[in-house]
Amino acid sequence: MKTLDWNQLSDAEQALALRRPALAQGGRDAQVADIINKVRAGGDATLLQLTRDLDKAERRSLRLSEQEIDAAAGRVSEELKAAIELAIGNISAFHRAQVPAPISLDTQPGVRCELHFQPIEKVGLYVPGGSAPLVSTVMMLAIPARLAGCERVVLCSPPPVNDAIVYTAKRCGVDAIYTLGGAQAVAAMAYGSETVTKVDKIFGPGNTWVTEAKRQVAADVEGAAIDMPAGPSEVLVIADESADAAFIASDLLSQAEHGPDSQVVLVTPSQDLAARVYQALAEQLAQLSRRDIAAQAIDNSLTLLCRDLEQAAAISNAYAPEHLIVQTEDPRALLPKLKNAGSIFLGAWTPESVGDYASGTNHTLPTYGYARTYSSLGLADYQRRYTVQELSPAGLQAIGPAVELLAATETLDAHKNAVSLRLAKLEKQQ
Amino acid sequence: MKTLDWNQLSDAEQALALRRPALAQGGRDAQVADIINKVRAGGDATLLQLTRDLDKAERRSLRLSEQEIDAAAGRVSEELKAAIELAIGNISAFHRAQVPAPISLDTQPGVRCELHFQPIEKVGLYVPGGSAPLVSTVMMLAIPARLAGCERVVLCSPPPVNDAIVYTAKRCGVDAIYTLGGAQAVAAMAYGSETVTKVDKIFGPGNTWVTEAKRQVAADVEGAAIDMPAGPSEVLVIADESADAAFIASDLLSQAEHGPDSQVVLVTPSQDLAARVYQALAEQLAQLSRRDIAAQAIDNSLTLLCRDLEQAAAISNAYAPEHLIVQTEDPRALLPKLKNAGSIFLGAWTPESVGDYASGTNHTLPTYGYARTYSSLGLADYQRRYTVQELSPAGLQAIGPAVELLAATETLDAHKNAVSLRLAKLEKQQ
Repeated sequence: MKTLDWNQLSDAEQALALRRPALAQGGRDAQVADIINKVRAGGDATLLQLTRDLDKAERRSLRLSEQEIDAAAGRVSEELKAAIELAIGNISAFHRAQVPAPISLDTQPGVRCELHFQPIEKVGLYVPGGSAPLVSTVMMLAIPARLAGCERVVLCSPPPVNDAIVYTAKRCGVDAIYTLGGAQAVAAMAYGSETVTKVDKIFGPGNTWVTEAKRQVAADVEGAAIDMPAGPSEVLVIADESADAAFIASDLLSQAEHGPDSQVVLVTPSQDLAARVYQALAEQLAQLSRRDIAAQAIDNSLTLLCRDLEQAAAISNAYAPEHLIVQTEDPRALLPKLKNAGSIFLGAWTPESVGDYASGTNHTLPTYGYARTYSSLGLADYQRRYTVQELSPAGLQAIGPAVELLAATETLDAHKNAVSLRLAKLEKQQ
Repeated sequence: MKTLDWNQLSDAEQALALRRPALAQGGRDAQVADIINKVRAGGDATLLQLTRDLDKAERRSLRLSEQEIDAAAGRVSEELKAAIELAIGNISAFHRAQVPAPISLDTQPGVRCELHFQPIEKVGLYVPGGSAPLVSTVMMLAIPARLAGCERVVLCSPPPVNDAIVYTAKRCGVDAIYTLGGAQAVAAMAYGSETVTKVDKIFGPGNTWVTEAKRQVAADVEGAAIDMPAGPSEVLVIADESADAAFIASDLLSQAEHGPDSQVVLVTPSQDLAARVYQALAEQLAQLSRRDIAAQAIDNSLTLLCRDLEQAAAISNAYAPEHLIVQTEDPRALLPKLKNAGSIFLGAWTPESVGDYASGTNHTLPTYGYARTYSSLGLADYQRRYTVQELSPAGLQAIGPAVELLAATETLDAHKNAVSLRLAKLEKQQ
């Protein structure tokens, strides 16, 4: 872990310290475009072929049958089901609280303006495969979709799809599970095939193939919208002298074990605390199954020594972390100063893990600095807002002359005429 | 205007009828990238040079001085100021009603989850130039920015900036007005210069140069987010036998006068109404100052004869229009069936023009089919949502074991360990 004293750095050095490493694009653009084109042209046959070639899986159907789903569910332990149930309860409660109320307002007498919400009709969820079955990702993506009222919710995950993922998807009301991974999964959901539903918006994390495919389909109006831009996971911890160094080390390692490109930053006014955290890191690292990955991320990570907690907040705001953990004597006192974070974890008893799984907040968060402008995933991402207006004759008479003048100022005759015609008719009637 | 009988069309023909024409990209990618690179490298000097070369304007400063602003304001008529005042009142009222309330909820005892909102810190507004001063665009972009609490709101418009635009920007609380247009304006706001503030998000319409520049800066994390993808303006009118044909013709022409690429669609079960609308169109078209533009758009436009209003709603939902006008005997009865529209105008006394200027709704709307997933512009686009959580010791003890099991299932040891360490400490304390 590299340690820098913030107040010894020049402006340029400060900016450099908070700069994230360039994302490896891997030059996948053309390869991904090729996969997307093949899927659009060849449909199911191409998808089955790609699954055979890339995922080494031989399947007759891209969609899991009810029998397969039931069999998988039967293999999930009751203990895990109970943990999933607890998480679903909390995630549902927090996202249900986000269901918006429509607005209806007379901006002036006879001029009714309304804001309505509608669910996005069809959504597609992507859940990565690999050794770790991302049960939490299924819950975080599917629960708000159902609460938002989306008509159809489908999920892609590369074969073999883990039993716990299948169970959780079924439990969260996913309509169809497709055994598809990578760019071909994104292409299938964006454009549809004989078996796969074409969706309006695609959600979920993924590797560089998935990320590039999401980028490409989002740029095409015939494709699908996407949840948010992707980047490596990251955490920033603000801590003072009072913090438990072992807790902080465990939080830094939670982030570090995601991958060698994870970003881990500790900001503290206490050099003593920093020293204690390094000690704890060394002790805990030795115990981890993913210690090689975590050690690499910790090597690349950063401790910033700052003047006080106010400066710590300013540093965090400039960095705009995905996860922000505050372990100080009075964490809530710092909250009004904190901006540009994906999700904030207050106090010693709130490790990032609780938000990743079961407190109720969503773990899908803007990363790589996007937290300056992008929101953490919520019910709003599964709905869209639109406006409605209705004027009475008196309402039109009240605002019509102003509209006529503004339209004339913008040299839009027909806009003016649409009002003038109506005002003339009303005048004749009176 | 082409007339098609919807129920005589095959599925493929129906899809084709609702397909929008391909957007002319103009192959501007490389030219725009070049302008952006020049602006990033050269700052103010480059911006002044580009303004000299492209806008033929010789300026010493990119920013309007207070004297210039006051002088411009002095040249705006009192009558226009009063119309602007009326519009500002209604737009402010409707957008103020959208200010969200934070959420705070115990998903279970000791597990506090919160949803907070923060304004996007710095925003940039783009207002196109040309012969028509788009006063309404200034109001629609600046009023929600101020109500959302954005710290800095800047505006670019190509020189010479019209007096009414300057006055309205000042009146709506814009902090700085830059005499910059095109791709160079977008580049300046996305990356900043000696004079121009670097912003976090850019809003507003523009020509293909502006659109391409917005696309490019949005794809760069160092650049800026943008409001929504752009496309030509469009209207769909649903009308029945009871509608006033002259009103409908005036609404179709309001759209048509925006440009030859405007999309204009009439959907009606009444062949008689369609005939009356054609007659009214011919009469009104002859009177318009922009009749050449409007005539081209009307030539490309479409009447779809349908079975009934329910089918009309389904056609509109499939098309996903930017503006949807409903002129039927009972327009509100159709509202629950309508989806995928940017803004809906109900009844004979609600021409599109009222929403364009002064009813209170925002006229910045998703077009080109994006209304399936994108929202009409609102206060929410100037803010971001983030979550906060805080657990008590009892709260952690209640959900900790479930988090440990879920983390273990995902083979994330360190995530589990962050909880286990804390539970062990609590156990020792008790």
